[in-house]
Amino acid sequence: MAVVPVKLGGRSYRVHVARGLLREAGRHCAPLLRKQTVPIVTDANVAREWQATVSVSFIAQGIEPRWLVLSPGEASKGWDTLARVTDWLLAEQVERGDHVLALGGGVIGDLVGFASAILKRGCRFIPLPTTLLAQVDSSVGGKTAINTTAGKNLVGAFHQPSLVLADLDALATLPEREMRAGYAEVLKYGVLGDAEFFDWLAANCGAVLAREDEPLERAVAASVAAKARIVAEDERETADRRALLNLGHTFGHALEAETDFSDRLLHGEGVALGMVLAARYSARLGLIGEDDAARVTRAVDAAGLPAEIAALGLNADGARLADHMLHDKKMDAGTLPFVLLRGIGEAFVARDVKLADVATFLDEQLRSR
Amino acid sequence: MAVVPVKLGGRSYRVHVARGLLREAGRHCAPLLRKQTVPIVTDANVAREWQATVSVSFIAQGIEPRWLVLSPGEASKGWDTLARVTDWLLAEQVERGDHVLALGGGVIGDLVGFASAILKRGCRFIPLPTTLLAQVDSSVGGKTAINTTAGKNLVGAFHQPSLVLADLDALATLPEREMRAGYAEVLKYGVLGDAEFFDWLAANCGAVLAREDEPLERAVAASVAAKARIVAEDERETADRRALLNLGHTFGHALEAETDFSDRLLHGEGVALGMVLAARYSARLGLIGEDDAARVTRAVDAAGLPAEIAALGLNADGARLADHMLHDKKMDAGTLPFVLLRGIGEAFVARDVKLADVATFLDEQLRSR
Repeated sequence: MAVVPVKLGGRSYRVHVARGLLREAGRHCAPLLRKQTVPIVTDANVAREWQATVSVSFIAQGIEPRWLVLSPGEASKGWDTLARVTDWLLAEQVERGDHVLALGGGVIGDLVGFASAILKRGCRFIPLPTTLLAQVDSSVGGKTAINTTAGKNLVGAFHQPSLVLADLDALATLPEREMRAGYAEVLKYGVLGDAEFFDWLAANCGAVLAREDEPLERAVAASVAAKARIVAEDERETADRRALLNLGHTFGHALEAETDFSDRLLHGEGVALGMVLAARYSARLGLIGEDDAARVTRAVDAAGLPAEIAALGLNADGARLADHMLHDKKMDAGTLPFVLLRGIGEAFVARDVKLADVATFLDEQLRSR
Repeated sequence: MAVVPVKLGGRSYRVHVARGLLREAGRHCAPLLRKQTVPIVTDANVAREWQATVSVSFIAQGIEPRWLVLSPGEASKGWDTLARVTDWLLAEQVERGDHVLALGGGVIGDLVGFASAILKRGCRFIPLPTTLLAQVDSSVGGKTAINTTAGKNLVGAFHQPSLVLADLDALATLPEREMRAGYAEVLKYGVLGDAEFFDWLAANCGAVLAREDEPLERAVAASVAAKARIVAEDERETADRRALLNLGHTFGHALEAETDFSDRLLHGEGVALGMVLAARYSARLGLIGEDDAARVTRAVDAAGLPAEIAALGLNADGARLADHMLHDKKMDAGTLPFVLLRGIGEAFVARDVKLADVATFLDEQLRSR
């Protein structure tokens, strides 16, 4: 059991990482609740597995859970469902000092977090993340959002939760491919800022993916701690600090856009391949050696994640992929910051990257192997 | 010409109050803009009067204005128009550091302010308020919102502007009834915290409503300064300080709800009558003398604003009006804070008001005169 503090002054909170947290959700949340009811939003898949357990845990505390069960999937993360969630919360008479619980993966966390950010100009929320990706990334740090026709996560808010319960038991039934996709973000924390953690992951990748108790807890807790440190330094991504978390995301965004943000390439898979490309591009610029780029490639490959862009079977050239990057929301005053490496564990934000050069590099990658 | 600072640390800004600001909008805004284009949202009524003038002022600075002109009226302040505004801003490639201008009254300011609060998790905005109500109230302090089927302003954000340009020239063509409704909020600042300003208004009400240069500027600037002081002390209404601005709003809300938030009773008219009721209820509790309650009544009446609930011709009793208050978004943990008076210029938040007693009081008011 690990408890990771996220230090943000008056907006500080703790992330609990352990087994059995959903069985004890009522006990953990009760001290924060002011009423005898609690609104919980989830999706139908998660509800099938956890609704009864979570309900019992609140009833044991004398608190009646009120449920809103949404359709699973990315399609729920839009304006219509956002309005549905806020209408429901208003009907439940949720007030500014009340908490809303978000039980599920990234879609539920982002959607419900955003709804709580704007309900009566802000009420409180508690994510209960049930996927590895949500536990190590989206549920920590307060980024909430919905998708619009123009793209993903383009409308949202910075809104910190009051508490995060990351139950490792929820990962027991996570499909293998989603587990690996979440692992890409775990690996990212090693590559961007912690060479020791990177080495530990290289030795323990199999055990983490097999969900062995201690390695899994260490991987999740270390990831949450890494993100907490960065968020504490740069909550709203106004300096270059938080931007480091975008390692692999700019290349990954182009690949996800080219595959229509579909199941062909999950977000974590895009990030994994994006990290490989960021490492290779860093090597191309002479920032790191080819050996370090190869180590990143091996770590991604060892996790069963895509490490070669050529293997994706894309019908696009480098220029087309680079063009997708222009529509990345990280664009700032006409330049696109790239997260590159000076070494494993030493990421930095480069603002002088030439997109034409990136396009040439991607053409080479598309042709290779 | 007055420049009122709103002191909020890193979120500080200035409110300019003067004639001729829209003619000079380009010059005032240019130092804040990073690009050669600027997105401006307005409504068709305001566009007819000001679009050309404002356009010319930006073109003179080498900045191309890009316009989104919405339908006038409260109906534009909902989910659909919010999504339309954010979609348009995304198409205009507005980034986090960019500014969006909101030219119009409270609907435009609240809507566009909210859109800028959530676009890419927050970009900057500059209100150019064109009504008295927007100049002295909604454009200062960072409250932004839309309406939902459950009620007004129930979904929104605290999001401070970068600059506010309150052009007194825009009030020249404001319909008489809207001018008076805005004056209710001016009067509110005197009643809640500044007996001297209240006395000055009693002597200058006619000159302000006639839009005479100096009295009008003083009334607007003093109101903005009063709001700025309160907002600086309690930006997110977490203490009881900002709640003082709700003087007249709880009674007013019930009256607006009973008249379906229609033209039968404008928001400012509801606030005016609400202030009278708050003063009389304070006198009923022995907090102030009947003479002070009568002074508030006279000040409201002198401005041509409704001062007698019996004159509204409502088909409701006190219990029904009190019930509307239960759905006020200011409800907190089951209690409804009321802003009452210990004297003119000395408002405070009472948390022990019994709604049943309020209902009895309202019955008496409905029957009287």
